[in-house]
Amino acid sequence: MLIRLSTGRTFDFTAGESILQALKKQGVYLVSSCGGKGTCGKCRIKIVAGNYSTGMAGRLEPHERESGIALACQTFPGGDVFIDIPKESLLVVGDIIEISRAKDLTGLFRSLDGRISPLVKHIPLELAPPSIENNTGDLERLEKAAEEKGLKGMSFPHAFVASLAQSLREAVWKIDLAFTDGPGALFISPLEEKPRYGIAADIGTTTIVVYLINLLEGSVVDVGSTYNSQIRYGDDVITRIIFATEGGGLQELREAVINNVNNLMVPMLERHDIKAEAVETAVVAGNTTMMHIFWGLNPGYIREEPYTPTLNAFPLWKAGDAGITINRQAPLYTVPCIASYVGGDIVAGVLASEMHRKSGISLFIDIGTNGEIVIGNNEWLVTAACSAGPCFEGSGIRHGMRATEGAVESLRIDPVTFEPSLGVIGNSKPAGICGSGMIDAVTEMFLTGVIDQKGKFVDSIDTKRVRKGFEGPEFLFFSDNQRDIVLTGVDIENIIRSKAAIYAGISLLLRKVGLTIHDIENVCIAGGFGNYLNVDKAITIGMLPDIPREKYRFLGNTSIAGAYLCLLSEGMRKEAEEIARKMTNIELSVSRRFMDEYMSALFLPHTDIGLFPTVAKLLGK
Amino acid sequence: MLIRLSTGRTFDFTAGESILQALKKQGVYLVSSCGGKGTCGKCRIKIVAGNYSTGMAGRLEPHERESGIALACQTFPGGDVFIDIPKESLLVVGDIIEISRAKDLTGLFRSLDGRISPLVKHIPLELAPPSIENNTGDLERLEKAAEEKGLKGMSFPHAFVASLAQSLREAVWKIDLAFTDGPGALFISPLEEKPRYGIAADIGTTTIVVYLINLLEGSVVDVGSTYNSQIRYGDDVITRIIFATEGGGLQELREAVINNVNNLMVPMLERHDIKAEAVETAVVAGNTTMMHIFWGLNPGYIREEPYTPTLNAFPLWKAGDAGITINRQAPLYTVPCIASYVGGDIVAGVLASEMHRKSGISLFIDIGTNGEIVIGNNEWLVTAACSAGPCFEGSGIRHGMRATEGAVESLRIDPVTFEPSLGVIGNSKPAGICGSGMIDAVTEMFLTGVIDQKGKFVDSIDTKRVRKGFEGPEFLFFSDNQRDIVLTGVDIENIIRSKAAIYAGISLLLRKVGLTIHDIENVCIAGGFGNYLNVDKAITIGMLPDIPREKYRFLGNTSIAGAYLCLLSEGMRKEAEEIARKMTNIELSVSRRFMDEYMSALFLPHTDIGLFPTVAKLLGK
Repeated sequence: MLIRLSTGRTFDFTAGESILQALKKQGVYLVSSCGGKGTCGKCRIKIVAGNYSTGMAGRLEPHERESGIALACQTFPGGDVFIDIPKESLLVVGDIIEISRAKDLTGLFRSLDGRISPLVKHIPLELAPPSIENNTGDLERLEKAAEEKGLKGMSFPHAFVASLAQSLREAVWKIDLAFTDGPGALFISPLEEKPRYGIAADIGTTTIVVYLINLLEGSVVDVGSTYNSQIRYGDDVITRIIFATEGGGLQELREAVINNVNNLMVPMLERHDIKAEAVETAVVAGNTTMMHIFWGLNPGYIREEPYTPTLNAFPLWKAGDAGITINRQAPLYTVPCIASYVGGDIVAGVLASEMHRKSGISLFIDIGTNGEIVIGNNEWLVTAACSAGPCFEGSGIRHGMRATEGAVESLRIDPVTFEPSLGVIGNSKPAGICGSGMIDAVTEMFLTGVIDQKGKFVDSIDTKRVRKGFEGPEFLFFSDNQRDIVLTGVDIENIIRSKAAIYAGISLLLRKVGLTIHDIENVCIAGGFGNYLNVDKAITIGMLPDIPREKYRFLGNTSIAGAYLCLLSEGMRKEAEEIARKMTNIELSVSRRFMDEYMSALFLPHTDIGLFPTVAKLLGK
Repeated sequence: MLIRLSTGRTFDFTAGESILQALKKQGVYLVSSCGGKGTCGKCRIKIVAGNYSTGMAGRLEPHERESGIALACQTFPGGDVFIDIPKESLLVVGDIIEISRAKDLTGLFRSLDGRISPLVKHIPLELAPPSIENNTGDLERLEKAAEEKGLKGMSFPHAFVASLAQSLREAVWKIDLAFTDGPGALFISPLEEKPRYGIAADIGTTTIVVYLINLLEGSVVDVGSTYNSQIRYGDDVITRIIFATEGGGLQELREAVINNVNNLMVPMLERHDIKAEAVETAVVAGNTTMMHIFWGLNPGYIREEPYTPTLNAFPLWKAGDAGITINRQAPLYTVPCIASYVGGDIVAGVLASEMHRKSGISLFIDIGTNGEIVIGNNEWLVTAACSAGPCFEGSGIRHGMRATEGAVESLRIDPVTFEPSLGVIGNSKPAGICGSGMIDAVTEMFLTGVIDQKGKFVDSIDTKRVRKGFEGPEFLFFSDNQRDIVLTGVDIENIIRSKAAIYAGISLLLRKVGLTIHDIENVCIAGGFGNYLNVDKAITIGMLPDIPREKYRFLGNTSIAGAYLCLLSEGMRKEAEEIARKMTNIELSVSRRFMDEYMSALFLPHTDIGLFPTVAKLLGK
């Protein structure tokens, strides 16, 4: 049997396969947030011709179904079919994308430490060439010269020994010896001035960012970012863990992310005419699941109570062993994690935020694919992962999408006509709603009275914009002959659940340490999402605490910023390890108190309006 | 074009290939001591039918050439050929062979140290299972338990971390932790009594010996030995180095020896129902070239002045990385070498001989594929490699062969009739002469007046046993309608050169330390050859010093004995390293004094007959 695409491509498929699976085999990936369970409704295709059976019709309007729209994961052809894949259903991974950058990294580094002390140290050694009177082994000769410079007890890995004889002779016995603390020999090169590079990588659940850094100057040479190709297997860490364990796909996931990093790096090196061997250190930061997969470790126990990672403090690894195509001997430093759901991205974030150095209380919030919170100062730190879920990245929202071209990123609703005006990324035709658009939408619907404090549609509102969908009432933001963009009651519930999880996390952590929101002196908003967030609106829906707006700071991608700091400075690596050691993780999932806080936060803005005085004022209460 | 063998096998070959190369491609290896240069004359075949051109006719009798005998390495078929390969030309490697064993190893160990302290240490750890209140990482949990037992700062390799989560749970948190000094974690296993094993391997240029050892008791479980498959590329270390460097065959040579070790080991483990994982340590000893090839290091600089090895003191390696199919994490210890031509086999030998512990002066001689000498006591040690060459293993001798079935190992010549009586290994038809047979032959020819003090045939001797060959006079020891076995004047020259090199080495070392042969209290003869050596005859030809016979001891394979000691005991490893550190290597090849000593020793027994009083007496002088 054949599948023919509207692009003209035709291929065979095996009976019994879903169209999603058949397309995947051909390298055509569809958005599939739920991993192919028929629940996210994102893998929409149009069957133009041919017989097919479709198991579940959920997540589709009746008129859509009638016009041949189907979910690829639930649809099984009964013979040759001709299908059309809408642009928004296509998952584009691996492409280089523009992402929110960290703020000026070089300035950050100067203000924090400023003394460059990378993992790889160098020492010049001039060896006496061998003679018949002194023909001891090459390694013994090098060892002696190193000992004379105070480097005793150095360890020599096999790869170092394997290339030693030739390298020494090519360098005519005048060498630069690269080593790590221990001391552990890494490689030798001829004794000459040459630039040295390192990479810092943020391995996010959704995006991967790689910075190429000049290690002599601390400057950013180039930046690359892409979607994490693991998205093919699901949007959040849980679907990835399931695929890694039950699906036996650990190696596949690992290769996906390693390829992403290499594919970002290789063109950067080419562009700047830098040899892979000149890149001599790598630092990676990411959440605990991403780091387990990167390390090739079964992440299964992260998901099972009592949520135990295999390790939080990762030893040094070798880039060559990890599969990163830089100098094979380059040490690979993994920013330490805290717990199963608070990873090295958060440690890196705290490091970059400097909250661990200040005596005043700071609140750090990273809203990415999940939501993590840290509260503390230079004496103590507490943290929690609050299971906000990836809804702000589009997952679980009917027409949700990431903040890429076509995403509604801001919107207003006219309080009289209820007509919306949309701000769309790239000023193109709207394709969906991204996180900041969702917060705007809920705020506007709430302030214009379209929805009530519980997020329910108010029956008495008279506008054609609110209509009855197959899942209940929904607000129509956009419509043309090809598609509608709505926010449904179910979507709003999901958004409120996410914002409630974040607020409840903050409340619970504060309660644990005996503080209130008024004790917070600084709020650091991190994560790609943070760049577009409208704080006023996020406070209006009760996601962020109602405290003076000037306390809020947007830090962008603090994970890559922290990785960069660790790449450049031994002091920063020690601080990162100290942050990881002293941070106390609170498991919210088993806390009854958290459930209480969460239930209270499932209102707009909150059951206790007294916590949101500026919102109360806005509502005229 | 086709080659057809008398066994019936037929195969294609490419024009321009020698028959030796064509056979090699088919996995048929011929004895080829010189590596295919046409000089050793060992790869004899009979061309039964077909056209061929043969480049050099050296090393063959005219009547042999006429009857179709040719050297495979020099013969190029001009069309289809039909050939017959004589049994003695076939190289049998990889088969399990019987070799000289070391003397009672267990007794040796008891007398030297007796306290078993292998490289791998074990500690029982009972971890608190994780709970929601304490869900730190598995590694941090293990680390804490280890620290409580005093093991601080342990390093954890990737392979350890990769299997940790599952192993801990399978062992229900009660584990045995295996580690090396450092401390470096290796692997964990359930906490239960179980036997532990190690292997000791002697990687000789000619033979490979593997002992499987019970590490709890120190006993020898099983022994296996085989010819080093590298023999396919030449008999001595020089031909191997040339093949590794000029021929680009380093990896091929390395794989040959690794396969030899694995092929010996696997059936032993099966026979005793031992799992590969239970073999947790490996120790290897061998000469410097063999160790470089084993480690995958370019041995080229060993051969080039000033004869510099890449290293003498090898770091610990992992069996898994080395390709030895025991526990992947098992540490692999390489007995340290001294110099390019004095290797770990000699260090192991000195260790096993105990000469480094005695106050009296000992002389240690290892006559294997090369000849190495050590003189010293518990305060100092000097050593030299004396380039004796592999002639005693059959190389460079017209009808020389190793001490296997069919080898003439002892002989007498009737002083009146000049008729020889031969002692043949396996009491079979003679196929050639091995080392001890050569020494007997030269001694007998010398004592019966067939050859003079210079090793030249004496014209006045009237016997049909001495005949004119194409290389000059030769002594016919055996003849039937298929083949003759002779010792030629050229062979005798080679034997005298070898014995002279050994004696000159001893003389020079003694001179260097201001001693004479009379200061020697013990002579230790090591090496496979040592087992069959007739000391009286070796003294008669002037190979060994003429001192009281009771000072001589035969130690057999001391390389494997030393490897065994290092496998069992930390004290022995320290002693081996101390021996390597304190031993002074003398480069004979650049010593003019050595040339003088060597020239003087090119006589039977020696230019200075005063050095050989018992031989003088025998000769009636």
